[in-house]
Amino acid sequence: MQPTVEVSFSPLLYPYKITQDNYTTVVVDIFRATTSMVSALNYGIRSIIPVKGVDEARKMKENGYLVACERDGKLLDFADIGNSPSDFWLDSLKNKSLAFSTTNGTQAVNMAKEDSQKVLVGAFINLQALVKPLLSANQHVVILCAGWKNLFNLEDTLFAGALANKLIDAGFITHCDAAKAAMHLWRDACKDLKGYLCNSSHRQRLSHILSQQDFEYSITIDSCEVVPILKDNQLIKL
Amino acid sequence: MQPTVEVSFSPLLYPYKITQDNYTTVVVDIFRATTSMVSALNYGIRSIIPVKGVDEARKMKENGYLVACERDGKLLDFADIGNSPSDFWLDSLKNKSLAFSTTNGTQAVNMAKEDSQKVLVGAFINLQALVKPLLSANQHVVILCAGWKNLFNLEDTLFAGALANKLIDAGFITHCDAAKAAMHLWRDACKDLKGYLCNSSHRQRLSHILSQQDFEYSITIDSCEVVPILKDNQLIKL
Repeated sequence: MQPTVEVSFSPLLYPYKITQDNYTTVVVDIFRATTSMVSALNYGIRSIIPVKGVDEARKMKENGYLVACERDGKLLDFADIGNSPSDFWLDSLKNKSLAFSTTNGTQAVNMAKEDSQKVLVGAFINLQALVKPLLSANQHVVILCAGWKNLFNLEDTLFAGALANKLIDAGFITHCDAAKAAMHLWRDACKDLKGYLCNSSHRQRLSHILSQQDFEYSITIDSCEVVPILKDNQLIKL
Repeated sequence: MQPTVEVSFSPLLYPYKITQDNYTTVVVDIFRATTSMVSALNYGIRSIIPVKGVDEARKMKENGYLVACERDGKLLDFADIGNSPSDFWLDSLKNKSLAFSTTNGTQAVNMAKEDSQKVLVGAFINLQALVKPLLSANQHVVILCAGWKNLFNLEDTLFAGALANKLIDAGFITHCDAAKAAMHLWRDACKDLKGYLCNSSHRQRLSHILSQQDFEYSITIDSCEVVPILKDNQLIKL
């Protein structure tokens, strides 16, 4: 079997994907959920429990968990920390399990687990690290872009293009127009990713929330070796 | 008010668009519904009634209408003609009203009418003709790509990029990442649209249905001056 790569530009499109059997889903939400997940595990946090709604996150807090939770970029009153990568860089969080709920990204992780054989978490910071497990699994790959409130966004698409490009170079094939478009966009944008994304709608939407430090960290390629994988509803290091 | 342009890559994403008030929707389904609609009105067909399902199309036939109807590229037994542009080039159809049902395009037209102030039909063959009424209306514009069974496709996206580009050049603005991506893809693809689309998944899917003549006709830019507009559930010449 020649493995294929497919891209879903929104969680709404994911149920309609061509690939239906024997696949790994890579979930991406560059600003900020999946960048933060990779960064947190890389920093030394033991595991992340992606929770869907605010109520569930609040319940996790009542049950003694540390909780990272924002909605529309605002820290919720019961939460310990927010959703930006640098929020997780605290010595006090090392070796702890953390519940994590965001507007788009954690919901995409929970959606992916329903019928994927495996769920991995991707970001620019662990782009190359993802390639090895995907190649050795020899499964189809679906890249699920979390988007912004179900809409297409540029940063998740460019990551999808970058990863699809690497898989195609390694012998994967694609029948998916979204993957072709994402690769095309990536090949142009990679020359100046920062300039390209400064203009994205989500960067502008997040301008008051996402610091310049966190923005630049999120688009720094291959700064981490960690690949989060979902096991028993927790994201841990692969 | 500075008018905006937004692109929905799939009917599934259309309800989540940013633009919610005072807008015109341009529906596009290059292979083949909207190209055929423009072509049919240009040829002399009086009006087209877009019908959603096969049952509704069959009922229209029983009520004496001429019917153009395929599903998954196959002509249905009760239908008079299929869905390709050249199917409509019959003298016997001139000045007639035709019921038209397709897998993706007519359903997108019916979806657009629900809350748009105006619904126009676009294709490469009437690209420039669309610009004038959109500029003079001074309304926001949403370009709705019919896609393929709810999935993103390249040909509708490239049309969206071409039209968005013209509107932006004329003073429209956009806050929509999908519009930015579509324009970016169009600026590359326009140098060799045929070569670019020969590789699209939908072209390959339709290779046994869409003749080379119809394919080339569908990507010939500005061969028609006709802009179909939806009035009382019928598409007529604007």
